Amino acid sequence: MSNQLIQPRTLSGFRDFLPEMMIPREKLMETARKVYRSYGFVPIDTPTLELSEILCGKGSEETDRQMYRFQHGKRDVAMRFDLTVPLARFVAQHHNELGMPFKRYHIGNVWRGERPQAGRFREFAQCDFDTIGTNSIASDIETVLVINDLIRAIGFEQFKIRLNNRKVLNGILEKANLAEHSVAVLRALDKLPKIGPEKVRLEMLETTGAPDSSIDQILMLSQISGTNREIIQQLGTLCEGNELAEQGREQLSEVIDATQALGLTEQNLEIDVSIARGLDYYTGTIVETFLTDLPSFGSICSGGRYDSLAQLYTKQQLPGIGASLGLDRLLAAMQQLDLIPNTKTTAEVMIVQFDKSKLSEYLKLAADLRRQGIAVELYPESKKLNQQFKYADRRGARAVIIAGTDEFASGVVQVKWLADGTQTELPLAENSNEIAEWLKTRLTD
Amino acid sequence: MSNQLIQPRTLSGFRDFLPEMMIPREKLMETARKVYRSYGFVPIDTPTLELSEILCGKGSEETDRQMYRFQHGKRDVAMRFDLTVPLARFVAQHHNELGMPFKRYHIGNVWRGERPQAGRFREFAQCDFDTIGTNSIASDIETVLVINDLIRAIGFEQFKIRLNNRKVLNGILEKANLAEHSVAVLRALDKLPKIGPEKVRLEMLETTGAPDSSIDQILMLSQISGTNREIIQQLGTLCEGNELAEQGREQLSEVIDATQALGLTEQNLEIDVSIARGLDYYTGTIVETFLTDLPSFGSICSGGRYDSLAQLYTKQQLPGIGASLGLDRLLAAMQQLDLIPNTKTTAEVMIVQFDKSKLSEYLKLAADLRRQGIAVELYPESKKLNQQFKYADRRGARAVIIAGTDEFASGVVQVKWLADGTQTELPLAENSNEIAEWLKTRLTD
Repeated sequence: MSNQLIQPRTLSGFRDFLPEMMIPREKLMETARKVYRSYGFVPIDTPTLELSEILCGKGSEETDRQMYRFQHGKRDVAMRFDLTVPLARFVAQHHNELGMPFKRYHIGNVWRGERPQAGRFREFAQCDFDTIGTNSIASDIETVLVINDLIRAIGFEQFKIRLNNRKVLNGILEKANLAEHSVAVLRALDKLPKIGPEKVRLEMLETTGAPDSSIDQILMLSQISGTNREIIQQLGTLCEGNELAEQGREQLSEVIDATQALGLTEQNLEIDVSIARGLDYYTGTIVETFLTDLPSFGSICSGGRYDSLAQLYTKQQLPGIGASLGLDRLLAAMQQLDLIPNTKTTAEVMIVQFDKSKLSEYLKLAADLRRQGIAVELYPESKKLNQQFKYADRRGARAVIIAGTDEFASGVVQVKWLADGTQTELPLAENSNEIAEWLKTRLTD
Repeated sequence: MSNQLIQPRTLSGFRDFLPEMMIPREKLMETARKVYRSYGFVPIDTPTLELSEILCGKGSEETDRQMYRFQHGKRDVAMRFDLTVPLARFVAQHHNELGMPFKRYHIGNVWRGERPQAGRFREFAQCDFDTIGTNSIASDIETVLVINDLIRAIGFEQFKIRLNNRKVLNGILEKANLAEHSVAVLRALDKLPKIGPEKVRLEMLETTGAPDSSIDQILMLSQISGTNREIIQQLGTLCEGNELAEQGREQLSEVIDATQALGLTEQNLEIDVSIARGLDYYTGTIVETFLTDLPSFGSICSGGRYDSLAQLYTKQQLPGIGASLGLDRLLAAMQQLDLIPNTKTTAEVMIVQFDKSKLSEYLKLAADLRRQGIAVELYPESKKLNQQFKYADRRGARAVIIAGTDEFASGVVQVKWLADGTQTELPLAENSNEIAEWLKTRLTD
């Protein structure tokens, strides 16, 4: 064998998760699972690799270009670039077994060969939930409630869910005879917060060639402001006479009424008539979610209602609504906000190996504590005490248990609390119950 | 757009996880995480894709052949085929940040282009834990304890961890002057349970050309039997005079002593001097784990001690010990043993939408119950009651809450317990506390 070492490195755009990042990442996933499950969403998983034919079916040119696609044997295969296309294929394929309505969540990695840049990776986790097979407004309301519960459970109170309805936009476009220019108009409208109404107006005039009066009708959307109820009221005039727009306004109103009754205020849920989210896919309610402390970070949880999830794979009409938590993006946001604790351990308690001949006693003590629900690490070697303490410190352990021949002889241990260096003597008797109780009290402080 | 439908299907060797399989699969992963964490193992993750150079470095010809490998831009890349090679690269790369000893777990998918066959998939989850940077026997003992805790936490009591030590084997080979034929001898020895000592003897004679007396020394291993302590005693004579063998025997003895002191008996831990597990990689303790009720299923959790994890990537000597739970294989075993409950829901309680105009009340009731820790699904539409009940039944809900105008007027709900069809009236007052309490009691029964 050659002695030439292979340089250990990762591919550009890919990364390792070290424990200090993977611990909060696992916690985020656990939190998402818990919230989704509390609403009866059920987990599924789909393959990383699918036939390119399946994955390319729905993608835009851009996603097609970004796909990791290759030949495997005789097959043209690709790695999934989102969790929505696999969901569509999945539901079309297993429709009868699943039964409708079907509420699923899916936490998994996706791959996109984008140009790597700060905070953008080629492999990242998404965390989707969808309710399929129903047009009921109850699911739109529930989607907003899930996002609210989710972001709160993760630990944020300062966030804003922005709500809109594509029917309002599409109806107003119809009213202004701009339906055929919807793509250009919505694209311009999306820029409203960035470039302001005058530049949006110019862009619309240029791309549509429509008369000023039509553009004015659309731009009245940018004048709308106030509380959610005030916005709904102001939308009244704008939507009047167009069935689609009125339906959209009514749906916005139902979502606001129901969520307000449950305590969601403008603090966390705000109608924003300018958001359009994708140009063809969504057909009703749309949502985006922003962290108040990182306004320019972009939406961390977005989604909306669609009329037809799986039309490429089945004739079955499958309406639904869902949203996707950008889990790794949220993790990056939390890192920017300094919300990631510097913990490198899953065990807050460490037992030092003070005396090698007492290994069985240390193992017994550790087993006792684990049985009582305390995660505990036994330092694997009987090295010098200061080295063992350094290890505990570095990893963020909170308590260290020390016992040598003298302690075992008198049936006690010393527990050192690392934050203040205090040391407490506790009895070993009765399956270490007293030590466990003491630790539990201190660790939950 | 063409009207031609794309047939929804998965690639050969790949599969979807429907909720009834994904729910227990998530539970298995949660259990593994919990057990690993209770010992202070910390989570990491590594990329799915790595440079082929990195992944091919250590693999055997067989794994190289099975690898999903392709060209991406200018890079020759591949999907990981196990979690050990990425760990080696990871530890070599982040050695200084991690600090030694380092105890990590890693739960993730791996990909192997094997010929698909019953129970063998091309994408499957592994669930590894390793202790790196120490030769201490405490880690060998801990590895056995973790496996024992893990298999028990998953729900099995009928299982056997088989323990051996490569030093014993290698030492006895040295003694018999068969060290240079170790690969052939160990390969033959691995067949002992299948083809019996006579055929193994013939194979060894043929492949090594060694004298009968040498082969006899090796085959004495197959005569060894009894309790763990009896086996260790019998190994005394066989190992005598060879330092390596005696060291191995001593280590076996230490593992047995320490685990026995913690209550592990022959029921679940048995020395098996015939297992060799891989021919070059392991250097000390080796373990395999079998389910008593599925003896022919193969090992569901295997591993061992190695002298040098990352020698391809670093000059640092990194000894360690670890094992891998074959999570998807275990799931398949549980399915064969009929241990997968037929539950398709994460919410044991469902609220029917009896009266559409009461949507806000249903939402409030659901929110109340969730706040008290009960997962609850609100049926999304106000369809016919029997359709809503069919949905609840089909998914495995246990309780259904029914309330219409009359109930809300008198401040009560009806709770139907699906197992026996009994119906109980409970008051809605005080944030639905009484309903929550009643449900909690019944659901934990």
